[in-house]
Amino acid sequence: MRIDIITVLPELLKSPFEASILKRAIDKGLVEIHFHNLRDYSSNRYKQVDDYQFGGGAGMVLMIEPIDKCISKLRSQRDYDEIIYLTPDGTTLNQSIANELSLKQNIIMLCGHYKGVDQRVRDVFVTKEVSIGDYVLSGGELAAAVLSDAIIRLLPGVLNDETSALTDTFQDDMLAPPVYTRPADYKGNKVPEVLTSGNFGKIEKWREQKAMERTSKLRPDLLK
Amino acid sequence: MRIDIITVLPELLKSPFEASILKRAIDKGLVEIHFHNLRDYSSNRYKQVDDYQFGGGAGMVLMIEPIDKCISKLRSQRDYDEIIYLTPDGTTLNQSIANELSLKQNIIMLCGHYKGVDQRVRDVFVTKEVSIGDYVLSGGELAAAVLSDAIIRLLPGVLNDETSALTDTFQDDMLAPPVYTRPADYKGNKVPEVLTSGNFGKIEKWREQKAMERTSKLRPDLLK
Repeated sequence: MRIDIITVLPELLKSPFEASILKRAIDKGLVEIHFHNLRDYSSNRYKQVDDYQFGGGAGMVLMIEPIDKCISKLRSQRDYDEIIYLTPDGTTLNQSIANELSLKQNIIMLCGHYKGVDQRVRDVFVTKEVSIGDYVLSGGELAAAVLSDAIIRLLPGVLNDETSALTDTFQDDMLAPPVYTRPADYKGNKVPEVLTSGNFGKIEKWREQKAMERTSKLRPDLLK
Repeated sequence: MRIDIITVLPELLKSPFEASILKRAIDKGLVEIHFHNLRDYSSNRYKQVDDYQFGGGAGMVLMIEPIDKCISKLRSQRDYDEIIYLTPDGTTLNQSIANELSLKQNIIMLCGHYKGVDQRVRDVFVTKEVSIGDYVLSGGELAAAVLSDAIIRLLPGVLNDETSALTDTFQDDMLAPPVYTRPADYKGNKVPEVLTSGNFGKIEKWREQKAMERTSKLRPDLLK
């Protein structure tokens, strides 16, 4: 998989891709990540990429021309399955969208910033608009990092133990059951006895029951 | 405001706080961010902070002891309004939770990793469990960065133009209207005429109508 991220702030994105699972996936050659600084595609000698809104109002808008240039250059080099615009009014990301995107070959992610991109970018270039949740961030950069992480950890070979992703919350529309590790007694707070019983049938049953209890209590909407 | 982030991967969090609006807020003294490497609180000479699950199963679990030590040290220095655990099965973050948290003084954010933290940490220390969305990430670090960004940009003085946050998507349960900037005609794709009309009453009306159209089409749930 290859992900191209178009942004005005590539430096913001550095560290999340240099640590942990994303770094390992890159090092193993399972994914290529390329950052593109939108300012490199400005035709203006001030490297301008944003301008005031037509009609007035607070907040700057990313201009269509540099985005067009960047996307056109990338498209001349390979085909893209999706050009995703990260925006709070996009389709809300969930695990099934992450699963679906993890099957793609080449993805462009376009990070909004300030008041967003010129609407014509969305009309002409973007194939999918994704929001990571119902809140506003100062830019699409963190959203692109989140979306990349959600997708990349699903690529075969990225997680050490493949069964680990399968027992995650949301993979089966259920919250995960509680987990415990040593010590069995911490200042009087004890681990549930069943987990130290060695009876795997009982443990499995307890976990299913707890997952169900937790889901009905905290997220009954997932059970529908 | 002060935010203390407890994590096994402080290096992952570096760049998002060194750029853009978060950096500006820190430089202006509007927020203090402190990272705490959980490994510094391990009592083990291998700096161990995680261990296998009781009852078996894939994935490691963060141990209670180092977390207890870190939180206890912080609490001995000041009072905290919230100890937030970032976890996919927490309450789903939205703009009203971000607004509410932006009024707090001191917040601890605890980043899950691997299979999460020992359940007793959640039972004993955590006052609020927050999820940034219905998808799984490789750790809570990006979630903590997202939550910090969503909160910090709401602090008075952080955004240059205070009216900018007020016209964001979600602040009034509506998606934002489309925005356009120069040029007015880009390769035949034109800006809607009303926006260049100079008639601000008409522009305001058009924007309200577009916001409503967009919200009813894309997110009818917000209008309820």
